[in-house]
Amino acid sequence: MARVQPARTFSTTRVEAFTDGVFAIAATLLVLDLTTNAFGRIGSDAEMWEALADMRDSFLAFVISFGLLSMMWVIHLQQWREIARVDGGLLWLNNVRLLFIVLIPFTTSLVAEYSEFYAGRMLLPINFFFAALLGFLSFLWASARDGHLLRDEAKDDAHAEGLAGLSAVICAAVAVVLAPWVGSWGFLAFVFNEPLTRVLQRRSRTRVTPGD
Amino acid sequence: MARVQPARTFSTTRVEAFTDGVFAIAATLLVLDLTTNAFGRIGSDAEMWEALADMRDSFLAFVISFGLLSMMWVIHLQQWREIARVDGGLLWLNNVRLLFIVLIPFTTSLVAEYSEFYAGRMLLPINFFFAALLGFLSFLWASARDGHLLRDEAKDDAHAEGLAGLSAVICAAVAVVLAPWVGSWGFLAFVFNEPLTRVLQRRSRTRVTPGD
Amino acid sequence: MARVQPARTFSTTRVEAFTDGVFAIAATLLVLDLTTNAFGRIGSDAEMWEALADMRDSFLAFVISFGLLSMMWVIHLQQWREIARVDGGLLWLNNVRLLFIVLIPFTTSLVAEYSEFYAGRMLLPINFFFAALLGFLSFLWASARDGHLLRDEAKDDAHAEGLAGLSAVICAAVAVVLAPWVGSWGFLAFVFNEPLTRVLQRRSRTRVTPGD
Amino acid sequence: MARVQPARTFSTTRVEAFTDGVFAIAATLLVLDLTTNAFGRIGSDAEMWEALADMRDSFLAFVISFGLLSMMWVIHLQQWREIARVDGGLLWLNNVRLLFIVLIPFTTSLVAEYSEFYAGRMLLPINFFFAALLGFLSFLWASARDGHLLRDEAKDDAHAEGLAGLSAVICAAVAVVLAPWVGSWGFLAFVFNEPLTRVLQRRSRTRVTPGD
Repeated sequence: MARVQPARTFSTTRVEAFTDGVFAIAATLLVLDLTTNAFGRIGSDAEMWEALADMRDSFLAFVISFGLLSMMWVIHLQQWREIARVDGGLLWLNNVRLLFIVLIPFTTSLVAEYSEFYAGRMLLPINFFFAALLGFLSFLWASARDGHLLRDEAKDDAHAEGLAGLSAVICAAVAVVLAPWVGSWGFLAFVFNEPLTRVLQRRSRTRVTPGD
Repeated sequence: MARVQPARTFSTTRVEAFTDGVFAIAATLLVLDLTTNAFGRIGSDAEMWEALADMRDSFLAFVISFGLLSMMWVIHLQQWREIARVDGGLLWLNNVRLLFIVLIPFTTSLVAEYSEFYAGRMLLPINFFFAALLGFLSFLWASARDGHLLRDEAKDDAHAEGLAGLSAVICAAVAVVLAPWVGSWGFLAFVFNEPLTRVLQRRSRTRVTPGD
Repeated sequence: MARVQPARTFSTTRVEAFTDGVFAIAATLLVLDLTTNAFGRIGSDAEMWEALADMRDSFLAFVISFGLLSMMWVIHLQQWREIARVDGGLLWLNNVRLLFIVLIPFTTSLVAEYSEFYAGRMLLPINFFFAALLGFLSFLWASARDGHLLRDEAKDDAHAEGLAGLSAVICAAVAVVLAPWVGSWGFLAFVFNEPLTRVLQRRSRTRVTPGD
Repeated sequence: MARVQPARTFSTTRVEAFTDGVFAIAATLLVLDLTTNAFGRIGSDAEMWEALADMRDSFLAFVISFGLLSMMWVIHLQQWREIARVDGGLLWLNNVRLLFIVLIPFTTSLVAEYSEFYAGRMLLPINFFFAALLGFLSFLWASARDGHLLRDEAKDDAHAEGLAGLSAVICAAVAVVLAPWVGSWGFLAFVFNEPLTRVLQRRSRTRVTPGD
């Protein structure tokens, strides 16, 4: 039973293409929330500026979600650089991850319009939390069983890359916890993503290979 | 006449790219059905939660259609792993298959809004049935004439892969038949897709190569 | 001056990817015209069927435009199979071609809603005519100067492929001419695309290489 | 510290795929601004032509933005032909560049509807200015430190390619400056993009390698 179904793995090419497509479309659909529908009748330059200023919440939500989607995509890019083959489990973990990516334009529109309510503030960070979590689980799956889906050269780095995914999950969790009080400002937790990743990796490396 | 027009086949690269694009966009457009248009004026957290709870049919339809689109895409991925070249017939079978994929966001919106009516419940499973059927026909076409469009190594597996496509058609047909009574719950028939595929493949293998 | 700027040509990879993306999105956006906005309040199964039947013009326009977009994409696929390198001229001919592809969802919506008016009937075939014309011009450009942008093996077939492009232009022109009387049924002219291509190619081959 | 983290660069494949996707979607979403929503009830061919004629601002804005998006994409194509590897800095410069690309459908809709106001005229050229600027900065970054991210063969041309990016920034700045007076006609400044690029490159070449 050990080497059964090696044929049931896939090359990463099309999975990456599908993923890039979904990320690109979700990121671009964010612009559909920026509409002039609420402008009413505009009669002067002053009113035009005012109408644009009233969109400031929408602009902010747009920039935040575009930035976070970009970051989620970069994390995918980093992880899949190490992944050589895809099996059914990884395929479906990736699909569920994409489901949460596709939801982002909706949860972003909630933030833009209903941030005064608890649910309006919370659903975007929760959405990103699950996207980050599925990202972490995807990489755990790929690096399980001695990295059976990773590139040969990547097996040494697998642990470090997994910790990067864990760091994103922690930052997303912090953003969720802070959201009731500070709303989308909680996403500033992701500023600590990079340093936190390094701390986790350094601690882990010291523990595993002290002389490396 | 036998070896006429070998030049009239195509490499799969762009066909797969176009297909991945259509699937990715159709899956992402599903989010456009999740809007706050029906929210009315929201005055409290309680009303906000209630408004979101009222969207439960839309959320369910979103998750179901995203899941089924993902599954259709995975089936495409599995089939085309075995396909080496594309001729005009396969190209057009694939295009018609994509037509039914593109329709999914529309038939999904029917389920979300009109599931109390016969037509509202039926059109989504019928849509997926035709997508599955075209997938099966595509693979039949590719593996016809001793697998003239398949990779050399794939010709042995062609029969098994075709049965996987047949299994999806059967599950989709069951979902159509169940839809009048149970609506979208009929899609749970796809839970049996994987085991049914195995049963079909085992029976077929026993018959063809008893000692294998 | 002869071999100036060989570096100013591009590989076809990204041009094809961008083109596939635009075609895939334009084809998928067609579904946005299929909405239930005009349904009004539905109270019974009979009313639901009636409301769907009232969408028949929209469905027909959707199928026609999806089919024609698919055909335009197949033509692109056939032409670019022969194209090895892209220069600035071909790049911009391709971009203008894509502009007409992007317009299709709009001209399709005109047909669906305003086919009783001259402009409503005419703009979709005119749109496709220009898309076909730009396709023909693209290939003329690529095969000019002894096929300087074609694959080496393709130079012999260049003339035949160009005639296929010409055939599509002729069919599109016929569809435009017929549109005032028969509307979108004029697109049935494309049924003659394949035979017309063969006739043009046979006549041309007989003339050029009588003993081939 | 010199050769630290060579592993933290990426191949360009997926970055280009994501970029092509975003450009293709942003270009295609432009068509969503061409709607018949403002048509009112149409009763005759004459009214239909009039309604279409009233859309002339929208059509013009569509063509301009599609043309400029195409040009921005061509610039990306030219630059990334020379880029061999992507590091974190280039990745994020590219992401910010894409943010401004994604905004184009919104700023285009402002031009179409509110060009009589200062803000309506200005935001589209400003948007393109930032897209061009980020493009220039991306290439500066890639060619810094003796072209550490460029293809080996490209290092000689890096300076020339950078000047092409600079030229686009200058043209975009001119379009911004002209916009208050001439609106979108200011984009005609881009007609001088190609000659300006050549002038900059010739001056620079004469200065650097007089005998070349």
